Amino acid sequence: MAPRLSVYLAGPEVFLPDGRELIEAKGAILRAHGLEPVSLPAEMGTLPAGTPWTVGVEISRRNEELVKRAGACIANLTPFRGVSADVGTVYELSFAAALGKKIAAYSNDPRPYRDRVKFDAYGGENPYRCQGKLWAPDRTMVEDHGMRDNLMLHAGLESRGATFHSPQTAPEDAWRHLGTFTAAVAELAGRGPTGG
Amino acid sequence: MAPRLSVYLAGPEVFLPDGRELIEAKGAILRAHGLEPVSLPAEMGTLPAGTPWTVGVEISRRNEELVKRAGACIANLTPFRGVSADVGTVYELSFAAALGKKIAAYSNDPRPYRDRVKFDAYGGENPYRCQGKLWAPDRTMVEDHGMRDNLMLHAGLESRGATFHSPQTAPEDAWRHLGTFTAAVAELAGRGPTGG
Repeated sequence: MAPRLSVYLAGPEVFLPDGRELIEAKGAILRAHGLEPVSLPAEMGTLPAGTPWTVGVEISRRNEELVKRAGACIANLTPFRGVSADVGTVYELSFAAALGKKIAAYSNDPRPYRDRVKFDAYGGENPYRCQGKLWAPDRTMVEDHGMRDNLMLHAGLESRGATFHSPQTAPEDAWRHLGTFTAAVAELAGRGPTGG
Repeated sequence: MAPRLSVYLAGPEVFLPDGRELIEAKGAILRAHGLEPVSLPAEMGTLPAGTPWTVGVEISRRNEELVKRAGACIANLTPFRGVSADVGTVYELSFAAALGKKIAAYSNDPRPYRDRVKFDAYGGENPYRCQGKLWAPDRTMVEDHGMRDNLMLHAGLESRGATFHSPQTAPEDAWRHLGTFTAAVAELAGRGPTGG
């Protein structure tokens, strides 16, 4: 039997009160597609006692190690505390991309980046056009490439043959909707060593 | 003469109206420290005509190529449109870290991540403590490791011997203050192939 593609689950689920259950549910979906999750709470092990600082450093070290060991990384890029994806998730996705791992990504916010910037960062005020670029009311430029987040994320996925999965309309609960995640998993399974 | 350490400048300066001048000024500081900037506007070349989408993909491709070619990456992690660093900058910093490049970083926001979350994301409302963790009013967990941003960023720097430089007090203009950048450059120069 061919070895299963191992997958690191990156995402801000760790910040949710039911994060553990959500991550386990996503792990079960990976397994149902013939993939092997490597970052479930059970595999993270017990953290050694220490100061908040040393514990933080140890979590980072373990996460980097798991990304290195995995064959793929699937990232939840749903915006977190702002107009863009969680920066810890982005760090892990990029780390995996640089190491040549297979990557996949999804977001449960249906809006393109430009609209989120307009409504979530600037209260709905329209950006203005000047010299072929789009500018927010505070005179910062707004990327206008039709992408779902900063171009390094969306185009980084695109260049590696990965779709940035997102729903047609906003799901009732962006953190607990599993449709886009499942689509990203199916894509990854199709590109995996056991896939077609 | 030993070759100069080449440095990729990552940061949201590209979104500022005077971004070009700011990046040139930072390039001059790199050169004054014996380092070689590789991502100045002049080196980025002219972009081919295309749709916004294809132009975005080409920018991403060129940036990844420049990070790969550089010996180091220095990242401006000053919060951008939210409580955390610009996700494009984080993508580039992590990409460099994964490839084993030297990394350095700075932010011109003096506050730890926890305080930015409290004041910038939740209007100053105090998070509450439950089961040893800190929770925001919307029941999302707030990292409390004494770090300057998500632990993958700060601890990722720490594990590689890099300081997350930041000012004691907020500078008058967070985007144009050069003190913390210069401190990060000096640190990088000290670790460079021509450094002590």
